[in-house]
Amino acid sequence: MTDRIKPRTLKGFRDFAPEKMLPREQVIETAKAVYRSFGFSPIDTPALEYTEILLGKGGDESDKQLYRFEDAGGRDVALRFDLTVPLARFVAQHVGQLGMPFKRYHVGPVWRGENTQRGRYREFVQCDFDTIGTTSILSDIETALVIHDLFKALGFEAFTIRINNRRVLSGLLDSVGLAGSAAAVLRAVDKLPKVGEAAVREELASLEGADANGVEAVLSFIGLEGPGDEVLAAMAETVAGSDEALAGVAELAAVLDGVQRAGVSWDRIAVDPSIARGLDYYTGTVFETFLDELPDIGSCCSGGRYDDLASVYTKQRLPGVGASLGLDRLLAAMEELDMLEGRAASAPILVTVFDHEHSGDALEVAAELRSSGLGVELYPGPRKLGAQLKYADRKGHAVVVIVGPDEVADSVVQIKQMATGQSESIPRGDAAARCRALIETES
Amino acid sequence: MTDRIKPRTLKGFRDFAPEKMLPREQVIETAKAVYRSFGFSPIDTPALEYTEILLGKGGDESDKQLYRFEDAGGRDVALRFDLTVPLARFVAQHVGQLGMPFKRYHVGPVWRGENTQRGRYREFVQCDFDTIGTTSILSDIETALVIHDLFKALGFEAFTIRINNRRVLSGLLDSVGLAGSAAAVLRAVDKLPKVGEAAVREELASLEGADANGVEAVLSFIGLEGPGDEVLAAMAETVAGSDEALAGVAELAAVLDGVQRAGVSWDRIAVDPSIARGLDYYTGTVFETFLDELPDIGSCCSGGRYDDLASVYTKQRLPGVGASLGLDRLLAAMEELDMLEGRAASAPILVTVFDHEHSGDALEVAAELRSSGLGVELYPGPRKLGAQLKYADRKGHAVVVIVGPDEVADSVVQIKQMATGQSESIPRGDAAARCRALIETES
Repeated sequence: MTDRIKPRTLKGFRDFAPEKMLPREQVIETAKAVYRSFGFSPIDTPALEYTEILLGKGGDESDKQLYRFEDAGGRDVALRFDLTVPLARFVAQHVGQLGMPFKRYHVGPVWRGENTQRGRYREFVQCDFDTIGTTSILSDIETALVIHDLFKALGFEAFTIRINNRRVLSGLLDSVGLAGSAAAVLRAVDKLPKVGEAAVREELASLEGADANGVEAVLSFIGLEGPGDEVLAAMAETVAGSDEALAGVAELAAVLDGVQRAGVSWDRIAVDPSIARGLDYYTGTVFETFLDELPDIGSCCSGGRYDDLASVYTKQRLPGVGASLGLDRLLAAMEELDMLEGRAASAPILVTVFDHEHSGDALEVAAELRSSGLGVELYPGPRKLGAQLKYADRKGHAVVVIVGPDEVADSVVQIKQMATGQSESIPRGDAAARCRALIETES
Repeated sequence: MTDRIKPRTLKGFRDFAPEKMLPREQVIETAKAVYRSFGFSPIDTPALEYTEILLGKGGDESDKQLYRFEDAGGRDVALRFDLTVPLARFVAQHVGQLGMPFKRYHVGPVWRGENTQRGRYREFVQCDFDTIGTTSILSDIETALVIHDLFKALGFEAFTIRINNRRVLSGLLDSVGLAGSAAAVLRAVDKLPKVGEAAVREELASLEGADANGVEAVLSFIGLEGPGDEVLAAMAETVAGSDEALAGVAELAAVLDGVQRAGVSWDRIAVDPSIARGLDYYTGTVFETFLDELPDIGSCCSGGRYDDLASVYTKQRLPGVGASLGLDRLLAAMEELDMLEGRAASAPILVTVFDHEHSGDALEVAAELRSSGLGVELYPGPRKLGAQLKYADRKGHAVVVIVGPDEVADSVVQIKQMATGQSESIPRGDAAARCRALIETES
């Protein structure tokens, strides 16, 4: 038979084998558990929507890099490119039944026809959480608390949640006559780390409405750094002429105060005036989260507050605040920081099978261990012990339980710890406790 | 603004609000935990594949009801219509790195342009597990054990795993000269409950190769029922002329024996000669799982053994056995059996907020409760207590913790059990223990 089809995936799409998928699933389940612990509830929406819904009015299709096509019923449809547009559509459609405020999380794949040469994927999973229908600063505070508890739960000790408030820069730009050039200002200051202050100063000075005072005010604002309370004090001084900016500073102070009241250490949170995140969308608090040991990989969890989620679909004004975990980036970081085990085994124990005559005993032992709450893989069928041990070694089982004829005759099992190679003979009734002790030692 | 877009979903596609999504997520997480407890490891594959990969050679596109289109790079692509074809492609592509035997589970959405009038969905989630690369009967036994533990873990007491073995009927048909009409025989006997024995007899008699003895043998075989050991004995007698059929009976006996050795009660497993499941694909043991209280909804978990998973993509022969949980059907059954809570609250506790001055205290109380492992939602912002209680009632919080000025002054909280409406004042340090006790009472 020579007409076989070569097995392959599309460019930009990925297979996840067990050693990659186990930690992905663990991170996703941890995120869901943390989201739920704050009262966020899960929703799901279709992968495929009307293109009109996804693009909104005046949407620029090329920006979204849509997978768009006509379905068998002649409908113009596309795969979702994020979870925010579906959230907006979902809330607008069901607002009557949902009630407000509405706290949801959503974990699911999205698709974009990205240029894969930049190391981007065309299919990736987003893990978002949002609080809709309230302008309360408590929800901003809670967003920071969720990020904090999530990174703790994932095992990170050294991370910093960097916060800013869009109202501060907006107010400042307004007060120095640069309100009309806000987007251009942001583009200019984004280049600061690369081109240096002199070049940015020159670019700012060339903008419509710019004068020397305004340019200096922006530059000194963006450059503020230090402990949160000091940055806030300096910020208030810099923007003293703008009520809007001062209101933003007060919100930042409330967020810092609130997270502290909830027990977050000062080290974990910083005020960073250079964070802007999507000028068009966010209107208040904005968040980014950096790993102290890997600052260069960028923010691993980002978000912020917005004024109006779903004006494309409903006249009801829906303010909200939320953030999104960068799953691929986070897993890459965890791999680099040696936080992943890299095992393909989902159960820590392998029970071996000696021959067909004794396979019933192996089934019994596996069931006994499993009923005590342990994860147990049974080797599928008799084979040389050496091959079964090699299988356990390759997959990363912590413990192998050997059930041979001698063991069956004596009502014992042989327990082999794979890390040390040590074996011991243990009465069957004590096997679960011993396995548990060995597994706990190792992890 | 009158150019709003009407929020809506495509026909056959579904939104899942929290009260629907919470139990879905719980069932999926339970399934994954049970799969892992038997050593099955997760994989994931792309939603989108080359159409050629999904259709295989000689595939009939209309059968698969593919969502098929040309991507921006001119590739002929389609959304996967099941998780079995991607598994075959995945194993063929990575067989060298995976090693055999390979035990995987895969939970993910699939898409089919089904006729929605039959109550079918065009997007649904499959939850499959398979053991690839072994012909050992132990893997057949383990498949039944996974189904058993899964239904137990989901809270079902009364369910029956019905098993059969394709070799038995194949051998029987061969021995009575009906081997060439196997598919037609299956179609005929499938109608038995609807049209009655006489009509089926007539249809069987009309098939090529049929004689009276053969027809009676098939009818009496299909009609066998009773306790497993009796059915097996009768089966062996009926098919005594065929070695192939007798080998199938021996496999069935081994599966019955094995699951019993692993502690499964006789009530939970039955031999049912009328189960066939996809004549072309399955070649050995086949499984269906019925809820005793809702037999009419059909099988909620089905699968079986196959000889060769991936011959379309590789010359390596890959036998396997597995099954698939019917998530939508199962959730419908759980709803009908009143096994779902129907709550939208993911955290059992709601902490109220009295005013801005005391919101820091509410944050503190929420953090204290959460740090003891409880799920706690903080109401986002001050509002009348009545409105906050109504919110808790609507979402289904079990307990409301009230943090007002009097409570703050006295270092207490007021704890209200929503089911009874009873309130009590509790010292803050004891609040976590009291909440936990109230939550456990209720569930």
